[in-house]
Amino acid sequence: MNNAHILLIDCPDEKGLVFNITQCLFQQNLNILKNDEYVDRATNHFFMRTEFEGDLNPDELQRQLLQVLPKGVNLQLNPKKKKDIVIFATKEHHCLGDLLIRYAFDELNANVLAVISNHNTLQSLVAKFGVPFHYISPEHKTREEHEEAIFKALDIYQPEYLVLAKYMRILTPQFVQRFNNRIINIHHSFLPAFIGANPYRQAHQRGVKIIGATAHFVNDQLDEGPIIDQNVIRIDHRFTAEDMAKAGREVEKNVLAQALKWVFQDRVFIHGNKTVIF
Amino acid sequence: MNNAHILLIDCPDEKGLVFNITQCLFQQNLNILKNDEYVDRATNHFFMRTEFEGDLNPDELQRQLLQVLPKGVNLQLNPKKKKDIVIFATKEHHCLGDLLIRYAFDELNANVLAVISNHNTLQSLVAKFGVPFHYISPEHKTREEHEEAIFKALDIYQPEYLVLAKYMRILTPQFVQRFNNRIINIHHSFLPAFIGANPYRQAHQRGVKIIGATAHFVNDQLDEGPIIDQNVIRIDHRFTAEDMAKAGREVEKNVLAQALKWVFQDRVFIHGNKTVIF
Amino acid sequence: MNNAHILLIDCPDEKGLVFNITQCLFQQNLNILKNDEYVDRATNHFFMRTEFEGDLNPDELQRQLLQVLPKGVNLQLNPKKKKDIVIFATKEHHCLGDLLIRYAFDELNANVLAVISNHNTLQSLVAKFGVPFHYISPEHKTREEHEEAIFKALDIYQPEYLVLAKYMRILTPQFVQRFNNRIINIHHSFLPAFIGANPYRQAHQRGVKIIGATAHFVNDQLDEGPIIDQNVIRIDHRFTAEDMAKAGREVEKNVLAQALKWVFQDRVFIHGNKTVIF
Amino acid sequence: MNNAHILLIDCPDEKGLVFNITQCLFQQNLNILKNDEYVDRATNHFFMRTEFEGDLNPDELQRQLLQVLPKGVNLQLNPKKKKDIVIFATKEHHCLGDLLIRYAFDELNANVLAVISNHNTLQSLVAKFGVPFHYISPEHKTREEHEEAIFKALDIYQPEYLVLAKYMRILTPQFVQRFNNRIINIHHSFLPAFIGANPYRQAHQRGVKIIGATAHFVNDQLDEGPIIDQNVIRIDHRFTAEDMAKAGREVEKNVLAQALKWVFQDRVFIHGNKTVIF
Repeated sequence: MNNAHILLIDCPDEKGLVFNITQCLFQQNLNILKNDEYVDRATNHFFMRTEFEGDLNPDELQRQLLQVLPKGVNLQLNPKKKKDIVIFATKEHHCLGDLLIRYAFDELNANVLAVISNHNTLQSLVAKFGVPFHYISPEHKTREEHEEAIFKALDIYQPEYLVLAKYMRILTPQFVQRFNNRIINIHHSFLPAFIGANPYRQAHQRGVKIIGATAHFVNDQLDEGPIIDQNVIRIDHRFTAEDMAKAGREVEKNVLAQALKWVFQDRVFIHGNKTVIF
Repeated sequence: MNNAHILLIDCPDEKGLVFNITQCLFQQNLNILKNDEYVDRATNHFFMRTEFEGDLNPDELQRQLLQVLPKGVNLQLNPKKKKDIVIFATKEHHCLGDLLIRYAFDELNANVLAVISNHNTLQSLVAKFGVPFHYISPEHKTREEHEEAIFKALDIYQPEYLVLAKYMRILTPQFVQRFNNRIINIHHSFLPAFIGANPYRQAHQRGVKIIGATAHFVNDQLDEGPIIDQNVIRIDHRFTAEDMAKAGREVEKNVLAQALKWVFQDRVFIHGNKTVIF
Repeated sequence: MNNAHILLIDCPDEKGLVFNITQCLFQQNLNILKNDEYVDRATNHFFMRTEFEGDLNPDELQRQLLQVLPKGVNLQLNPKKKKDIVIFATKEHHCLGDLLIRYAFDELNANVLAVISNHNTLQSLVAKFGVPFHYISPEHKTREEHEEAIFKALDIYQPEYLVLAKYMRILTPQFVQRFNNRIINIHHSFLPAFIGANPYRQAHQRGVKIIGATAHFVNDQLDEGPIIDQNVIRIDHRFTAEDMAKAGREVEKNVLAQALKWVFQDRVFIHGNKTVIF
Repeated sequence: MNNAHILLIDCPDEKGLVFNITQCLFQQNLNILKNDEYVDRATNHFFMRTEFEGDLNPDELQRQLLQVLPKGVNLQLNPKKKKDIVIFATKEHHCLGDLLIRYAFDELNANVLAVISNHNTLQSLVAKFGVPFHYISPEHKTREEHEEAIFKALDIYQPEYLVLAKYMRILTPQFVQRFNNRIINIHHSFLPAFIGANPYRQAHQRGVKIIGATAHFVNDQLDEGPIIDQNVIRIDHRFTAEDMAKAGREVEKNVLAQALKWVFQDRVFIHGNKTVIF
């Protein structure tokens, strides 16, 4: 299946879109393996994801598609392949360790080019897996200088996605802008509950009976980007805030892994502040 | 949306099916509201469900579709409307009561034409909702005579679906055959665990930590028909077999309601012993 | 088991509490059926719930217990019996209908003495079950006059608990005070997410992937009382706000029923703004 | 809390047990931190787990307890400490990798003394964590000779528990007997559904909508030992048997980790073919 591709289209809805798109593929003698469409009625916006195989002339297909699709269409034509990523972490190992094990056994659908951290706590964990570790301390640096140092490291790797695996620093809007729609974060609460710091302490004080975690794209408003996946776990009065944090970490790593699986398979559209996932 | 229809197609997969089908709809000037496709690679079988609206000439559309679709295609063209159903029950009220409340408030997407029971226990419950209740006792009757009496009652109502809402008698293959793929049962276990009688007692003896329920189409092998939905609930050592049965009833009624929702919206394909649900 | 009782004790923790309490029961020749204890280490508070049977001299037991327990103990000695309740509802039937069916089949562990509503929408539903329905309109009344009219109705029934089964009016602090720790509400969101009005619309706008419901005791801060139970359901981008509301109603009725089961079995302690549930 | 202990008692139920046991602790001036009891009414068997701290004379406490407890009592008095374990694996890394990461960060509540495998596939993974790896091939050995070689390795380590982390060989009854109630297995199905080989293939053929995993103690009947924990994940028609296996692995590792947490904290009683977990 080495000539498999994924076609991602989103545009204002109009009559005949599926017909017109599949006609282009049919005429190029391409074989659809999997096809999903969705129309968001609130915004009248059309989404289509098509996996196909066959001898592809990408420029020709793109040219033909643009002829039949409305103005303002977003069109991506991706070869089916692993994504290049860089992982950011701070001191907590659970998400990072989980991703590294998956990567070591080729289950991540991504190449982990490097790990970047504002602490050196996780250096030895990362070393076990032969992945470059960049300890970029924010000490004696302005926020801008610190991010500049990170950019320099990223320039080496040219990653397609940045994964914030419990990276406990807030990125500047400039940083986020540079990797627009390409940064995925795991937040340790069931958003929008407990936005901000110490969500498990907040949850403990509120006496909730369920806690959760949220994987989302990062935009310039803290904890406000498009949600990719969420999950929860049942707790009870016997859980201290620390017990909640421990139980929550299990959810965090599972949710992040699930979200990355979808993103790296080109199954996630971003639409305003929401995601459409096939 | 009074001229909305649902088109259900399943057939051996071949190149161009989506294109050919959507072309037929496009040429008839019909507007696709929702479209789902799936190809089962193990059997190379194609499934497509399309909700559309517009001025339909059903014979013409069907004629055109058959021209472009492979031999052996299954094709249904259903107006979007409520299904006519008859519910079967025995002594337990929880599923029946839940369905009657939904029906009373027009949330079932079905007309409950009648309730048939082998006991008269639930007569007064059914009477509250103004639904005809047929108490058809199997006493002093052979199995065939009993089912003959049921057929007579069903002849009055001509239901599209029979819903076995904890109907605790086994139907003969002749009965099942007559309503092929049109009988939905709720089984009080997480099939295929605990097939047969007294599943909660079996579950209690085995010491399981989760119990469940299964909604499925009925075929001529007990508890072996295509599964529509399943769900579970966590239990612990403190649950007696009776506690499990009580907790299980909550799952049973929720699973049956969910399965019926999908079936009555024409979202369920039966494929061999499995279901494809859009 | 007609002489079964439930003993509820909570007090500051100190050494020997379990020993001292069980000694009192042992000396009175009472037989413990079920015993649960918990110490909240954050506040150093002790909780114990004991089901026992035997010939009880309640005054004598209470006298002996108070001798060995610290000052400021909360002590309840309840016969194991159904609670008397009044249900409040507005226009939505799903929670009310579910509770009435359970009551009709003696599964609620409570006597539904009456239903009170600010609309007459649900009158015919309630009538089916032979339960008095009080339509108390707030029209042409101040908030105080309206609540005064409700109090008058409640005076007839002297309920132990009020159940707000989607009662869409906010109670005054005076009202809440009068039924302190005895009002249970079902809130249509996974608190503390989406406090206030239209939670499903808020959830839709935020693009969450899971929605939920929360049963809680009512105190004088909106949606802020001690949480008894919560549950969730997974949704996706295809859900409109209305679809979310529909799916959410299923969770609401299940969560409310679960919370009431625990409260009516005397299994719930209120501790500050939290609950301890055995 | 270096003098914290856990007392585990199970015996036939009789009046006054909690009183008598807590009296022994009280008289020795020990402070109860956490106490749980349960009586299984079906077998009239009493279970109690007590965490306490204080200056303990273990022989004296044990002597006093035996005086007040019925004949045939099972009594354990464990210091609160990590368990010594050996992990068995075959070729699949997901459970083993998860446990090693937890061990590396001191989250397993156990010392992983060694990993034993019938293949050398996972050698390099284990080496990353500095844990001894014993590749004990069954080739050219009878089953007894193979197990004899394993025993020899185990003799070095004297583990308290053996963890079968997807160890794909069946142990002989002699082996199981030697580690009675001390072997924990993760089974890749929701037992008792799909006992035996290839559960995911079986699940795929049956068309189930939920799959699961089961952690259990091993006894001499395949997949029949006391269940410690189970969990499930929702799937749909799009899952191939291989997709199910992949999704199932996520559940397997989570369930095994949860079960081990409980076992290693001395929270699990075995009672016949069931577990009681506090």
